[in-house]
Amino acid sequence: MVKVTFLKIGYIGATNLIDALLDERASRRDLSVRVVSSGCKMEEDEALDAAKIAASIPSDLYIVVSPNAGLPGPTAAREILIETGKPMIVVSDEPTRRIAEKLEEQGLGYIVLYADSMIGARRGFLDPVEMALFNSDIIRVLAVTGVLRLIHTEIDQVLSQLGKGEEPRLPKVMVRKEEALEHSGLGNPYAHARAMASFEAARRVAALSTEGTFRVKERDRYLPIVAAAHELMRQAALMSDEAREMEKINDSVRRVVHFRSGALRQKTKLLEEFE
Amino acid sequence: MVKVTFLKIGYIGATNLIDALLDERASRRDLSVRVVSSGCKMEEDEALDAAKIAASIPSDLYIVVSPNAGLPGPTAAREILIETGKPMIVVSDEPTRRIAEKLEEQGLGYIVLYADSMIGARRGFLDPVEMALFNSDIIRVLAVTGVLRLIHTEIDQVLSQLGKGEEPRLPKVMVRKEEALEHSGLGNPYAHARAMASFEAARRVAALSTEGTFRVKERDRYLPIVAAAHELMRQAALMSDEAREMEKINDSVRRVVHFRSGALRQKTKLLEEFE
Amino acid sequence: MVKVTFLKIGYIGATNLIDALLDERASRRDLSVRVVSSGCKMEEDEALDAAKIAASIPSDLYIVVSPNAGLPGPTAAREILIETGKPMIVVSDEPTRRIAEKLEEQGLGYIVLYADSMIGARRGFLDPVEMALFNSDIIRVLAVTGVLRLIHTEIDQVLSQLGKGEEPRLPKVMVRKEEALEHSGLGNPYAHARAMASFEAARRVAALSTEGTFRVKERDRYLPIVAAAHELMRQAALMSDEAREMEKINDSVRRVVHFRSGALRQKTKLLEEFE
Amino acid sequence: MVKVTFLKIGYIGATNLIDALLDERASRRDLSVRVVSSGCKMEEDEALDAAKIAASIPSDLYIVVSPNAGLPGPTAAREILIETGKPMIVVSDEPTRRIAEKLEEQGLGYIVLYADSMIGARRGFLDPVEMALFNSDIIRVLAVTGVLRLIHTEIDQVLSQLGKGEEPRLPKVMVRKEEALEHSGLGNPYAHARAMASFEAARRVAALSTEGTFRVKERDRYLPIVAAAHELMRQAALMSDEAREMEKINDSVRRVVHFRSGALRQKTKLLEEFE
Amino acid sequence: MVKVTFLKIGYIGATNLIDALLDERASRRDLSVRVVSSGCKMEEDEALDAAKIAASIPSDLYIVVSPNAGLPGPTAAREILIETGKPMIVVSDEPTRRIAEKLEEQGLGYIVLYADSMIGARRGFLDPVEMALFNSDIIRVLAVTGVLRLIHTEIDQVLSQLGKGEEPRLPKVMVRKEEALEHSGLGNPYAHARAMASFEAARRVAALSTEGTFRVKERDRYLPIVAAAHELMRQAALMSDEAREMEKINDSVRRVVHFRSGALRQKTKLLEEFE
Amino acid sequence: MVKVTFLKIGYIGATNLIDALLDERASRRDLSVRVVSSGCKMEEDEALDAAKIAASIPSDLYIVVSPNAGLPGPTAAREILIETGKPMIVVSDEPTRRIAEKLEEQGLGYIVLYADSMIGARRGFLDPVEMALFNSDIIRVLAVTGVLRLIHTEIDQVLSQLGKGEEPRLPKVMVRKEEALEHSGLGNPYAHARAMASFEAARRVAALSTEGTFRVKERDRYLPIVAAAHELMRQAALMSDEAREMEKINDSVRRVVHFRSGALRQKTKLLEEFE
Repeated sequence: MVKVTFLKIGYIGATNLIDALLDERASRRDLSVRVVSSGCKMEEDEALDAAKIAASIPSDLYIVVSPNAGLPGPTAAREILIETGKPMIVVSDEPTRRIAEKLEEQGLGYIVLYADSMIGARRGFLDPVEMALFNSDIIRVLAVTGVLRLIHTEIDQVLSQLGKGEEPRLPKVMVRKEEALEHSGLGNPYAHARAMASFEAARRVAALSTEGTFRVKERDRYLPIVAAAHELMRQAALMSDEAREMEKINDSVRRVVHFRSGALRQKTKLLEEFE
Repeated sequence: MVKVTFLKIGYIGATNLIDALLDERASRRDLSVRVVSSGCKMEEDEALDAAKIAASIPSDLYIVVSPNAGLPGPTAAREILIETGKPMIVVSDEPTRRIAEKLEEQGLGYIVLYADSMIGARRGFLDPVEMALFNSDIIRVLAVTGVLRLIHTEIDQVLSQLGKGEEPRLPKVMVRKEEALEHSGLGNPYAHARAMASFEAARRVAALSTEGTFRVKERDRYLPIVAAAHELMRQAALMSDEAREMEKINDSVRRVVHFRSGALRQKTKLLEEFE
Repeated sequence: MVKVTFLKIGYIGATNLIDALLDERASRRDLSVRVVSSGCKMEEDEALDAAKIAASIPSDLYIVVSPNAGLPGPTAAREILIETGKPMIVVSDEPTRRIAEKLEEQGLGYIVLYADSMIGARRGFLDPVEMALFNSDIIRVLAVTGVLRLIHTEIDQVLSQLGKGEEPRLPKVMVRKEEALEHSGLGNPYAHARAMASFEAARRVAALSTEGTFRVKERDRYLPIVAAAHELMRQAALMSDEAREMEKINDSVRRVVHFRSGALRQKTKLLEEFE
Repeated sequence: MVKVTFLKIGYIGATNLIDALLDERASRRDLSVRVVSSGCKMEEDEALDAAKIAASIPSDLYIVVSPNAGLPGPTAAREILIETGKPMIVVSDEPTRRIAEKLEEQGLGYIVLYADSMIGARRGFLDPVEMALFNSDIIRVLAVTGVLRLIHTEIDQVLSQLGKGEEPRLPKVMVRKEEALEHSGLGNPYAHARAMASFEAARRVAALSTEGTFRVKERDRYLPIVAAAHELMRQAALMSDEAREMEKINDSVRRVVHFRSGALRQKTKLLEEFE
Repeated sequence: MVKVTFLKIGYIGATNLIDALLDERASRRDLSVRVVSSGCKMEEDEALDAAKIAASIPSDLYIVVSPNAGLPGPTAAREILIETGKPMIVVSDEPTRRIAEKLEEQGLGYIVLYADSMIGARRGFLDPVEMALFNSDIIRVLAVTGVLRLIHTEIDQVLSQLGKGEEPRLPKVMVRKEEALEHSGLGNPYAHARAMASFEAARRVAALSTEGTFRVKERDRYLPIVAAAHELMRQAALMSDEAREMEKINDSVRRVVHFRSGALRQKTKLLEEFE
Repeated sequence: MVKVTFLKIGYIGATNLIDALLDERASRRDLSVRVVSSGCKMEEDEALDAAKIAASIPSDLYIVVSPNAGLPGPTAAREILIETGKPMIVVSDEPTRRIAEKLEEQGLGYIVLYADSMIGARRGFLDPVEMALFNSDIIRVLAVTGVLRLIHTEIDQVLSQLGKGEEPRLPKVMVRKEEALEHSGLGNPYAHARAMASFEAARRVAALSTEGTFRVKERDRYLPIVAAAHELMRQAALMSDEAREMEKINDSVRRVVHFRSGALRQKTKLLEEFE
C-alpha cells in the first residue's frame, strides 16, 4: 500500500480532482490518498501551516499543487516537505517553468501545465459562481486534451515504482500542446486538431488574464480584457467537448481505467471488454 | 479570524471548489481555511484517519462533505469531529435526506444537494477522464442553478455569526429546485425555467446511475443506462450554460463577491460598480 | 382489407400521426383507416358521442388514444366500443399503467407510453402556438427513441393476424426506456445513450407538469415550474435530434417501410436497396 | 355552443393539431369539436366514405383539411359536405391556389398554406419515423412563423359570428410569408427576419420534394434531392426555433389564449397577467 | 507559362478568391495571374475603363467576373476584350443565363452560378460590415457545395489546353444544384443532402433580395424581406459548414491541390499522402 | 471625384473586399476605385509587374495590400508607386510591424492587422476549398471585431481630405485587440468580450501556422499543427458570429453606411432611420 499525500496551496484547474484521478472508482487496494489544502490562500504563513500538517502525515510520496510554484508560499511549503526526505512532485502552471531547473537540482519532479491558465482575478468580474464556471471549463480542457491522462500516467508510474520498492524516477515534464495531445487518445485527426486548438486557446487565456489583472490599471479597459479571458476559456471548453463528441460518433473514445491492483487497462469501443 | 476546516470523504460535485467559494479571490482577512481529504475512498478506516487529522487542526467550524452521509465512513468521521465540540455542517447528496432528522438531533447543520447526482460507477464506462468531465458538468449545473450561491451564502452567515462571537444558527436546508433557483440570480423567466429544467435533469441522473450501478446486473443493459446518465448530465450542463448565456445577452448576470472584510456585495451590469 | 378505426379522445403526443404510421405512403392495399376524434375535450359526454360515431363505422380493430385512460371519458368510450365485440387496443400515457390489469381482464390490448408526458396545462403559460411546439418536441422524442416504431410494429402484427383471419394477440406493453430504445434502430452506443437520456428527460416532464398544474397553487411558483417542464421537453427533443444526427454521420439510420402488401422491409445505408 | 367538424383527407402539416388550436386547454364552453379522417389515404372512395361520416355529424361549420384540394378525393368530399348546406372552410397547401377562384364561386372559404410543403414521398427515403420527424419540423415552422395563429384567428372569427347567429364571413386567405409573419407576434426584427427566412426555406422544400418525387426518375438522383428536401425542412424548423429563442431572451413571447368564453386574450411578459 | 487576366466588374460571391483558386499556394510555375477591377461599380464608363487596362495586359485568357453579365457595363467590357482576340470565360450569377446563348454565339465560355445570390442592396440594411459578412457566408456555400471546385477545375482544363498550345474548349456550364454537388467531394449521403439544401437556400436568397430591393417600395415591408434574405444566406452557410463537419468526423474530406506543375492531385484521409 | 487604386500582392484576409468597403452600394459620386493584383504570387517580378500597371493608372491615392510588407515583392512594388509621388497606405499583417518605422520615414501610412493571421501553407492540408473557407472565417472575424470598420474609417478620412484638396494625414495604426474593438460597435459587454476573445484566437492562429509551415519539419507533426490553426480560425469566426447574434437579439447592431456624397451615417435599431 503506497501512501500519497497531496498538498494543495491555492487553486489551479488541476487542483480539482488531481487526487481523484488516481483512483476514480475508489477501488485500488495498493493506494491510500490524503489531501491537505490551505484553500485559495497561498501566502507564506498559510502555506507553511498546511505544509506542516501534510508533513505530519506518514507518506511515501508528496505531490504539491499550486499556481506559480516560484512564489514564496509554495516555496516555503516545499522546504518543509523536503525535510521529510520523501520524494516530491510539483504540479503547477506555466510560470513555474522558470524554476524548473531549480526543482531539478533539488531532486524534485515536476509537471508544468501550459494550458492551466490563471483566472481573471479582478473583483469587478469574478465571483464564486464565475470562478466555479471557469474551473468547470478548464477541467474540461485538461480532460479532453490529454493533460489529466498525462498527469495520472506519470504519477501512476511513480506509484508503481514505489510499490515495488524501487527508487522512483520522478517526472520532469513540460506539458505543451504536443505532450498533452499525445495522451489524449483522440484518433480522428480533426478531433485531434480541434483539441489542440482548444489547448492553445486555453493557454492564450493566461496572457489576457495577466494583462487584465496586473498590467492594465483603468477599470473600463481591464474589465473587457478579463471578460475576454473567460469567454476564451469557455470557448476552449466547448471545442474540447466537440472533439470528444467527434470520437463518440466514431465509437472511438479511448478509455483507460485503474483496476483494483492499480494496473491500467484500456478499451476504445464502449461496449467491448477491456483488453 | 474565523478558522474553517473542511473534511472531504469521497467525492460529490460540490466537493470540488466548496472551500474556494468562501474566498474566491484569496483576499479575506477574516477567514482561514483548511481542507483535509481521503480522496475518493470513503470506507470507515480511511474516513476515520482523515477525520483525526481534521480534528487536530484548531477550527471554529467543521464542514464535512461526502456522498451519502449515512454511510459508515462519513458517520464515523462525524463522530470524531463531534468530540471537538465545534459546530459542524454536513454537505451531501440526496440520499442524505434520510438521516436529516438524526443530524438535527445531534445539533448538526446540513445542506442536502438534490442535483448533485452520483456518477455512473461502472468500470466499463468510467475512467479518470470521463470522471473529470462528469464533474465539470455537475459543477456547471451547481453554479448556474444557484446551488453554489446557496452553499456559500449559508456558510457565510455562519461565519459572520462566529466572527461576532455569536452562537451560530446552522443551516438545515434541502436544496431542491425551488430552493436552489431562488439563489440563482437568474432574472429572465426563460433562463430561470431552463435552469430549473437543468436542475431536474441533473437530479434525474441519480436514478439512472444507481439503476445502472447497483440494480441491473447484465453488462449489455447497464452500460447503456450508465452512459445515458452521463449524457443527461452533459445535457444538463449545456442547459445551464444556455441559461447563463441568456442573462449575458441581457447584461443581467448577477454577481456577488466577497470583499476583504468578508462582506458580500453585488452588481448585475458588468461594467457598473458594486453596490 | 383490414379496417382499423382510431378513436381519439383528447391529446397526447402519440395522438398526432398514430394513424399515419401504419401507411405513411398511403400505398397499402391491405388496409383502410378511419379516425374519429373529439378534439381536445375528453369529458364523458364528448367522449361518448365520439365513441358512438366510431362504433357505427364497420371496423376490424379499434385503437383508442387518449391521456390517462382511467378517466371517465375514455372509460365510457371504451364501454361503447366493447359492445361492438371487436378487438381493441388502448394507447395512452403513464398514468394508464394503473388500470393495465383491468384492461387486461377486459381482453383489451394496451401500449402505455412513459415518455409521452402531459403538457403544462396552465393558461398563464399555454397558448395554441406553445401547445403546437410542445407537440412538435414530443413527436421528435417519440420518433427517435423508438416509441413510434414500437407502436406501429405492434399494431402491424395485429393487422397481419387479422388479415390472415387469425385471432389477434393484442399487445400488452409498458413502453419504458429499454422497451422503447430496443426499437430505435440506433446503432452507435452514444447515440443510443443520448436517446435514452432524451427519453428520461421527456418522462421527467410529467412530474413537473403535474406539479405545476395540479399541486402548486401560487401563480409565481407554478409558472416557472410549468415553463421548466416545457424547456425540458424542448431539450429532450434536441437530444433526440442529436442522436439521429450521429447516425446520419455514420450513414446508419435504420429505415423500415411498409410495402404495398403491408410487409415491412428495412435498410440502413441511405443509398442502398431495401432488403 | 357551436359545433365544428373537421374532415381530414390525407396529411399536410396543419392536419396535425388544427382542431386542437381552437381549444388548446379543453376549456371552452362555447365550442364542440369533432374530427373525422381517412388517415393518409385520399383517393376518391376513401374520401367519400369519410365525408359521409362527417356529413352525418350535426355541425355548424365544416373545415376540410387535405393536400392539394383540387385532387379528386378532396373534391368529391367537398361535394358531399356542400349538400349539408353548412358553411365550409378549406385548409390546404400551395397547389390549392389553382382552385381558389372556384372555391370562392362555390361560396367556400379557404386558407392556403404556402409553407406547408409536401413530404418527400419516395419509399427509398421515407419511413414512419422519418415521416414523423418531417411533421415535427413543419409543425414548428407553422407555429413560429404565424401560420397556426392565423389559422385559429380566422376560424375563431367565424366561430364568433356563428355563435352570435350571424352569417359568417368565411376567410379567403393565401398564407404567404408576409401574411403569416404578421400573425407571428415576433417583435425583434431579426427574429422576425429569421422566421421569414424559415418560412421561405420551408416553402422551398416543396420544389425539391416534387422534383424528387415526380420529375426525376433515376434512383441515384432522386434520393439526394428528396433527402435535401428533408434536410431543408429540418433546418427551417431550427431557424424557427432560434427566432422564438430570441424572443424568449427578451421575455417578449406573445401569447394569445382562449378563455372559457372563447374570447382571446394576450400577454407578452411570461409572468404578467393577461390583458 | 500561361498568362490569365481576370477582369472584375462589381461583386458577386465568386469575385472573391476566384484568382486565388488557381494557385492557392502561389507555387505554380506554369501560370501567371493578373487581376483588374473597378471595385463595386459596374456602370459602363467604369467597366470600360477597367476593361481597357485589362486589354493592355498581355494575356492568354480573359476571365470576366461580374453580376448579371447582360448589364451594359459588363457587356461593354466584353466588347473591349473581344477585340484582343483572346479566349474569354464569363463567370456570373443566375440572371446571366438569359444571355448564355448569345455568349455562345460570340465564342465565349461561361460559368453561371445559380447559388451566388445578390446581396440585399438596401441602404437601410447594408453597411460594409454586413456586406462583408454576406460575402463570408456565400464564400462558404460556394466552397462546400462544389461550386469553387467546379470553377477551378473548368478553368484548369482550359489552362492545360493553352499550356499545350491547343485550341481551348471553353466551359459552358450552368451551375445548378446537381452540377455543383457533383464537384463537392462530399461522400456521406446526408452531408451531400445537407449541402444540396444549403445550395437551394442560398439560391432562394436571390428571390428575396430582388423582391426587397426592386419590387417592394414600402420601407417597413422591404427591410424585413432584405433582412430575411441575409438570414437565409447565413443559415445556408451554417448548413454548408455542418456538411463539411460531417465529413471531418469521417476523416473523408476530399482535398484536391495544385502541384507546382499545375497538375491536380487528391487525397481524402488527412494524414495520408496525395495519390 | 477621388481616384483610389488598390495594389494587391498575394493574399491576406483583408485583401478580400477591402476595395468594396469604401462603396459597398456602388453609389458614391465622389469616388472611383481601381484594383490591380498579381493573384497569390508575391515574388519580386510578379509584384513589380503589377505595380507598374497600377502606377500607370491615374490615382490620387494608392493602397497596397499584401502579407508581410517587408518581403522583397511588396517592397519593390512600393518603390514603383513611390515614384508617382502620390500618397500611399500599406495594409498588411502582423509581421509588418517590424518595418513600420521605415514606412513612416518614407512618408507612407500603414494599417497593420494583428488578427489577419497567415493561412497554414502546407500542401498536405491546403486546397482551394480549404483556402476559401479559411478566408471566409477570417473575413467574419475582421468584420465583427471592428477591423474592417477601422480600415474603411481610416481610408474614408483620407479620401475626405483628398476630396477637399487638403494634404492627407495618412493613418499609422497598429490594429491590436483594443484598437479593433473600439470600432466594432458592439454594445453588449459580453458580446464585446466574446469578440475580443475571437480576435485573440484569430491572432493566435499565426503562431500555429508559422510553426507548422516553417519550423516543424516532420510531416506527422506539422499536419496536426496546421490543422489546429485552421480549427482555431473556424472557432474564432464562430465566436464572432455569436457576438453579432447577441447584438441582434438586443436589436443593437450598429450600422454605418456611405451615402452618395461619401458621408457616413449610422443607426442601431434595424427599423429606424439613419441619423
